[in-house]
Amino acid sequence: MISIFGLVGIGEVNDGDRLASLIVAAADGALHEGDVLVVTQKVVSKAEGRLVPVNTEDPLAAKALVEQESVRIVRRRGDLIISETSHGFVCANAGIDLSNVPAGYAALLPVDCDRSARRIRDGVRADIGINVGVIVSDTFGRPWRKGLTDVAIGVAGVAAVVDLRGTPDSLGRELQVTEVAVADEIASAAELVMGKAAGIPVAVVRGVNAEWLREASVASEIVRPPSEDLFR
Amino acid sequence: MISIFGLVGIGEVNDGDRLASLIVAAADGALHEGDVLVVTQKVVSKAEGRLVPVNTEDPLAAKALVEQESVRIVRRRGDLIISETSHGFVCANAGIDLSNVPAGYAALLPVDCDRSARRIRDGVRADIGINVGVIVSDTFGRPWRKGLTDVAIGVAGVAAVVDLRGTPDSLGRELQVTEVAVADEIASAAELVMGKAAGIPVAVVRGVNAEWLREASVASEIVRPPSEDLFR
Repeated sequence: MISIFGLVGIGEVNDGDRLASLIVAAADGALHEGDVLVVTQKVVSKAEGRLVPVNTEDPLAAKALVEQESVRIVRRRGDLIISETSHGFVCANAGIDLSNVPAGYAALLPVDCDRSARRIRDGVRADIGINVGVIVSDTFGRPWRKGLTDVAIGVAGVAAVVDLRGTPDSLGRELQVTEVAVADEIASAAELVMGKAAGIPVAVVRGVNAEWLREASVASEIVRPPSEDLFR
Repeated sequence: MISIFGLVGIGEVNDGDRLASLIVAAADGALHEGDVLVVTQKVVSKAEGRLVPVNTEDPLAAKALVEQESVRIVRRRGDLIISETSHGFVCANAGIDLSNVPAGYAALLPVDCDRSARRIRDGVRADIGINVGVIVSDTFGRPWRKGLTDVAIGVAGVAAVVDLRGTPDSLGRELQVTEVAVADEIASAAELVMGKAAGIPVAVVRGVNAEWLREASVASEIVRPPSEDLFR
């Protein structure tokens, strides 16, 4: 049984805020050992001072910012740029977001999303002595499917990818299906209680397989290297 | 609050089995109005007689089957074929699967996955008078991220994509982020309790936003038409 609930009452997050403290206060005793916290990129970027001023009336200014945050442009169509970020993520507009940030500002991705997740995990443990997994989530599109889903852009204390190779299927034969991106699945599950407009930047996912709770990194586990990539 | 649990005790599914009956029996009174059932493609394909014999020792036989089930080959590398199916899905090996099926057989995708979902929804309502959403799920890869996630390949009674355009963000401005693929997110969430080897082919997702419970179709809502596609 998995249960998922949002943490309400975190309020606006500002540069320098310690997210672990805000989360512990909002959870008010509700966190359990082995819970996974899913924290949206937006509040992580705000806490880490990743808001930058941008003239949103000037398409060239936004475009320049996207190019500055990209290491490679993958596709362009009209105003849409699909690019690869310094983290290795391939996404629209280098993950830069203009919603839920003050007018005239854009939110850049955290510099090191795994480190951002680790800071929250370590902070929660320091404050209340409870080990939680942490996923920093963001909202990405997909090339062949409409609609966006939330994915993991940083993890700490929870696997990004679980390797099922060698696990027998229910008929006792070795599974062909190999690696499951559990952190992305947990991020998507959390989005179901957060919504985009609901002002709930953190969700708690309870009941995930205890074997998935281990040290891990999205950067090294989930980013497909260009050498394996058929579509870059 | 969302809760997710798997239905145990469904057992092996055979050609001609009525999935709604198997689900109602396994749930044993636990289904609620507004629950969403996530049913793996594998048992739908089995119930619908979509197992075909294939000589799995002969790579050419498997390849011929993939080509037969594809309307367009998108990429090839070694034994891997990324292709577009008749449904419009772009995935590895036309969605054909050799795990959790009897040796010497392959499971093809259902012919019309939305209809498969509708048949289950209608059957549950006929049997116990409860309206459930139904998602038929399958496991797909992603071009730039390692690991697989579960997605919706058919829906009935639950939205495939929810349009948030025009919803104000938490600062009161109109959201830029537009469409959320909630059926894919629900499918991913359900996978967290199913696993690949656990023999749990159906999960119940309880507590999804009631506004998402509407008639819908993956085929028309989630498949990105080739004209909008930058990567086909």
